Amino acid sequence: MKLLAIVAHPDDAAIFCGGTLAKHAERGDHVTVAHMTRGEYGGLGSDTEEDVATVRTEESRAAGDVLGVDEVEFLGFKDGRVEYSLENRLALVDTLRKYDPDVVLTHFKDDMHPDHQATARLVTDAYYMASLPLVETDFEPCDPDNIYFFGKPTSSFEAETFVDISGYLDTKIGALEQHVSQIDFLIDHGGIDAEFDNLVDSLRAEGMTLGKRVGCEAAEGFAPLHEQARDFLMD
Amino acid sequence: MKLLAIVAHPDDAAIFCGGTLAKHAERGDHVTVAHMTRGEYGGLGSDTEEDVATVRTEESRAAGDVLGVDEVEFLGFKDGRVEYSLENRLALVDTLRKYDPDVVLTHFKDDMHPDHQATARLVTDAYYMASLPLVETDFEPCDPDNIYFFGKPTSSFEAETFVDISGYLDTKIGALEQHVSQIDFLIDHGGIDAEFDNLVDSLRAEGMTLGKRVGCEAAEGFAPLHEQARDFLMD
Amino acid sequence: MKLLAIVAHPDDAAIFCGGTLAKHAERGDHVTVAHMTRGEYGGLGSDTEEDVATVRTEESRAAGDVLGVDEVEFLGFKDGRVEYSLENRLALVDTLRKYDPDVVLTHFKDDMHPDHQATARLVTDAYYMASLPLVETDFEPCDPDNIYFFGKPTSSFEAETFVDISGYLDTKIGALEQHVSQIDFLIDHGGIDAEFDNLVDSLRAEGMTLGKRVGCEAAEGFAPLHEQARDFLMD
Amino acid sequence: MKLLAIVAHPDDAAIFCGGTLAKHAERGDHVTVAHMTRGEYGGLGSDTEEDVATVRTEESRAAGDVLGVDEVEFLGFKDGRVEYSLENRLALVDTLRKYDPDVVLTHFKDDMHPDHQATARLVTDAYYMASLPLVETDFEPCDPDNIYFFGKPTSSFEAETFVDISGYLDTKIGALEQHVSQIDFLIDHGGIDAEFDNLVDSLRAEGMTLGKRVGCEAAEGFAPLHEQARDFLMD
Amino acid sequence: MKLLAIVAHPDDAAIFCGGTLAKHAERGDHVTVAHMTRGEYGGLGSDTEEDVATVRTEESRAAGDVLGVDEVEFLGFKDGRVEYSLENRLALVDTLRKYDPDVVLTHFKDDMHPDHQATARLVTDAYYMASLPLVETDFEPCDPDNIYFFGKPTSSFEAETFVDISGYLDTKIGALEQHVSQIDFLIDHGGIDAEFDNLVDSLRAEGMTLGKRVGCEAAEGFAPLHEQARDFLMD
Amino acid sequence: MKLLAIVAHPDDAAIFCGGTLAKHAERGDHVTVAHMTRGEYGGLGSDTEEDVATVRTEESRAAGDVLGVDEVEFLGFKDGRVEYSLENRLALVDTLRKYDPDVVLTHFKDDMHPDHQATARLVTDAYYMASLPLVETDFEPCDPDNIYFFGKPTSSFEAETFVDISGYLDTKIGALEQHVSQIDFLIDHGGIDAEFDNLVDSLRAEGMTLGKRVGCEAAEGFAPLHEQARDFLMD
Repeated sequence: MKLLAIVAHPDDAAIFCGGTLAKHAERGDHVTVAHMTRGEYGGLGSDTEEDVATVRTEESRAAGDVLGVDEVEFLGFKDGRVEYSLENRLALVDTLRKYDPDVVLTHFKDDMHPDHQATARLVTDAYYMASLPLVETDFEPCDPDNIYFFGKPTSSFEAETFVDISGYLDTKIGALEQHVSQIDFLIDHGGIDAEFDNLVDSLRAEGMTLGKRVGCEAAEGFAPLHEQARDFLMD
Repeated sequence: MKLLAIVAHPDDAAIFCGGTLAKHAERGDHVTVAHMTRGEYGGLGSDTEEDVATVRTEESRAAGDVLGVDEVEFLGFKDGRVEYSLENRLALVDTLRKYDPDVVLTHFKDDMHPDHQATARLVTDAYYMASLPLVETDFEPCDPDNIYFFGKPTSSFEAETFVDISGYLDTKIGALEQHVSQIDFLIDHGGIDAEFDNLVDSLRAEGMTLGKRVGCEAAEGFAPLHEQARDFLMD
Repeated sequence: MKLLAIVAHPDDAAIFCGGTLAKHAERGDHVTVAHMTRGEYGGLGSDTEEDVATVRTEESRAAGDVLGVDEVEFLGFKDGRVEYSLENRLALVDTLRKYDPDVVLTHFKDDMHPDHQATARLVTDAYYMASLPLVETDFEPCDPDNIYFFGKPTSSFEAETFVDISGYLDTKIGALEQHVSQIDFLIDHGGIDAEFDNLVDSLRAEGMTLGKRVGCEAAEGFAPLHEQARDFLMD
Repeated sequence: MKLLAIVAHPDDAAIFCGGTLAKHAERGDHVTVAHMTRGEYGGLGSDTEEDVATVRTEESRAAGDVLGVDEVEFLGFKDGRVEYSLENRLALVDTLRKYDPDVVLTHFKDDMHPDHQATARLVTDAYYMASLPLVETDFEPCDPDNIYFFGKPTSSFEAETFVDISGYLDTKIGALEQHVSQIDFLIDHGGIDAEFDNLVDSLRAEGMTLGKRVGCEAAEGFAPLHEQARDFLMD
Repeated sequence: MKLLAIVAHPDDAAIFCGGTLAKHAERGDHVTVAHMTRGEYGGLGSDTEEDVATVRTEESRAAGDVLGVDEVEFLGFKDGRVEYSLENRLALVDTLRKYDPDVVLTHFKDDMHPDHQATARLVTDAYYMASLPLVETDFEPCDPDNIYFFGKPTSSFEAETFVDISGYLDTKIGALEQHVSQIDFLIDHGGIDAEFDNLVDSLRAEGMTLGKRVGCEAAEGFAPLHEQARDFLMD
Repeated sequence: MKLLAIVAHPDDAAIFCGGTLAKHAERGDHVTVAHMTRGEYGGLGSDTEEDVATVRTEESRAAGDVLGVDEVEFLGFKDGRVEYSLENRLALVDTLRKYDPDVVLTHFKDDMHPDHQATARLVTDAYYMASLPLVETDFEPCDPDNIYFFGKPTSSFEAETFVDISGYLDTKIGALEQHVSQIDFLIDHGGIDAEFDNLVDSLRAEGMTLGKRVGCEAAEGFAPLHEQARDFLMD
């Protein structure tokens, strides 16, 4: 099967679904991480946006290597300026069609950061448009099975589907640690948001807490666009 | 694996989880239906409680045969008089231990009928007590994996886990149709509750509507006591 | 009294509120169905958007005839491209003022399809602007009493007001069946969304299931913008 | 039609549904207020329970006169000691059957006071049992149409059905003012609960605030046991 | 400390947070009220938008004097036309940076009026952008501690943080009464929305009802963007 | 001020509110931990209930010493057999009156363990009865200010009030570690509930995760019975 994670900023893939991506990759699924932006705003005043983008692009590729994903892509939107528009929706339709995924992972629509919100809405709209033959883009219509939305357990996000990432928490943290510039940025910058301090410890604690809730060592949580039936109560 | 459904009244098994029981039975799981009461109050004024109980016991066995379950049991409580008490809780601990199930199915605690509420609470409490060695009953401690609660989609019940019962909807209806006395009771009696009129049509419509929601022909919905992690987003 | 239903696509009126429209029409209320788009995207790759629009316009009129509505209007937006903008809001203000309805029916704002979302927001905003004398459009200010939002019971929509459509379910289905091109489209196309398969059976089951919940044969559900007091608990 | 309000304590009828009772009474409906207890605990240390009960019984009758209700009844339970039991449930079945109401009004089950909770559950259970011919009590089986639960808008109560009591707010307050002993009790006692201070002002403000929410001068809110369909969106 | 309230229309400050602003001002905090628009649409057909704006600007200053706030500002957006766009977001970033507040107060994002919704989203987005050094505007980056959202208790707004405004309710009403043009507008205009009739009585009743809920004479309610820990359960 | 924590089992105080108790104790508040039961069921089959009770009583005292609380009390109920009854409610009224606390801490009513549920309801009911002069027990009436309910963040518990326990997380863990018999019990017993495995790691992770959510190093969460107003938005 094919997974496509569409994230707003370079470090979002590790933070929100790194364990799940690594686990799917290891069993042989085709996994792509597409970044809406290069995180151009994640720098100190002394760097230009272009400087920051260059560094973070490399960090994203390194994180992708740690997770074992097949492809790392950049969609060309600008950090802090992802807009919900018909034109951008069409660009996402084309991205979906290019990768023809079974499952799409992305932000949930009420997440706090405006880029996360716009990404969530663009991807969801694109999902409804991607299968229509009369919506013409560079690639052929496709029909993904479902979208799984993600968000931090410390936000208003409510997970319904939990993936056991026991054994993959270190990989997730390892991927996060590739985003060296951000660790510095957060220290020097003083924090847009206190919850990003001490990211490593915090992600580890969140993974464990979610794991306790669902009966395993560590977990990541998702909310599916469509609920889906299963075959039996227990296999 | 072993399933134990604990229902308040004879027709509850077919109504709430008949398709799921039939499907598990067909794949070879060991399925027991334990009835808290014999539905003694489900009669017209001309019958005694004992008359009603005798008829409904037979109907329950016939319905169990249609569903293909392994055992049909009666726990000896009285219809309309199931009480939430320490003594009754202990009786349920003993029932759990006797059957040592992997999965328990029962009513949800805010269902409308007082017997459904009391059953829900007694079974849930018993689940917590059944594994304790110092709680002494006739059978050895056991530790079921989970409880799945059920309720009608027309009530305040909120399902989170859906079982695809495509191909088993006719079996479910066939089991319901064994409860011949109730069809008469409901017609003559005029309805405690309008939602039990035309039970057959209504159950068929509910199964289909739930199926549409989760992408299959027909479904039944459950709410698990413990949320549980899965291995991958798609298999 | 006057009702105005504003729907995104040609078949939405039958699907979401066909029974209610037919019932109001039959008692002599003035009922208008205004379509945001002609459903141009609802075709196979072999047709042009214009071909599809032509066919679906005729189907909408035929469905309107089955429901017995007084007027069928097309507002000129493009399928899959209804945008939330100040300019479009003003167009909707003008539509409200032209028909001067007592009650407006439209999609709920969290429905899945992006056109449904945009329609919901544009109509709601227009409702707040339509009464202001300084907001100038071609028609005079008007002040509708309320908006009733609709959505499928299989989505996240939560109805609070239920209309008894017993006796009108066949009319609703009959209206749906005028959308012949869509039945073909859905069969050939394979389904944006599994929940539109077997539309006829599914709508019938939904109407019955909702009816059981509120004590009648069949029902449609709505969520009012403003809650409203009634005179007595029972008339 | 016949209404039966079953309240835990003497002043609850005026506080929770006084306006609605007065309005129904005035249009000629038969209205009964049944008090579970005489409010024996609502006294200062210097009075005996019997003293308090005697005074409050008179106050209840005076309040009933102000509201214009047809009957004022006392069911013989003890203040602060209403117990949820099978025996008490049967007593309530008998009460329902004696008055054979179309509509029952009572407390909601998560209200704060333990007597309110027990009353809510006993009445709801009795509603399910009252129609069964095999449940034998002194009166014939009956089948009320619905229960409407009430609670204060300052608690966790969520109203869904609102009755316009414009023109009846003064009557409601007038009924409350008959409970002279409680006004003294609350002043001297210092308040179990700060929200009962200045009862009169507070009830007036609540009625108005609820009225604003639903488009009238003053309102009372209820949550029905069964949601019910209506005939049209507007009459 | 510094508070910045950003409201859509001239009378919103008094209505939604007047008591809180007055109380903070009195203890010596620096309080600014920034108005997105001058309420140009709040006039009868005989006035021009410019006439209305001129009158309401004066009324806003008078209301600010009653509340005792330090600054009253107008941000230059147009009534009924506040748009959610990147450009407007940047304007709000600049406003936040200019005043460098500790706490921001604004509308909640699901409020009914489209200008309230757009204001809520623009301010929240600006809050996330204001601290980033690479987002360049006229003023230096700033990092407010929190946003507190407000809305009417008669809407779907859910308050979590309550400020005791006992002793400031008259000031709040006094501020509202400066908006003389609106009282006339609402009388003559007949009401976009019945809930603005008799504003004075209604605001007084709401303040009291909320006060009863949280144990004081009068209160205003807010929902914080970030939940925050406190030091002890009681001081 | 005086705090009274009423917990069902010996290790519940450390698990649910240990950090908060330690912090209040350190600033000089009078803190009591009252245990409903001695946790008699928390033993292997080889011990008697009395053996277990003796060991766990000592462990509770040791944990109380680590937290620095003033009093450790045992209320004499039996583990797994705490019943919701009028008689037990009266015993709790007497406990409240004996300690005359400003603030009571206890379990929330929908927690999973039946003893937690019964404790929650008994304490809440007792809170309403404790101030009534006509309810006679051994001690004088009292009127605590509020109850704060607690529950695990991995259950369905929803905290609204958060206490910053930065600097007290080690104390909390230290208190938990006094319950040596339980660590053994849980290892040997195999887990009533997987979420109690590795209690120490799990509690540490939960405290940190909650802390991140509310902007501090570590936190505990509570839900107050009564919401309460504060004086200012920020001090």
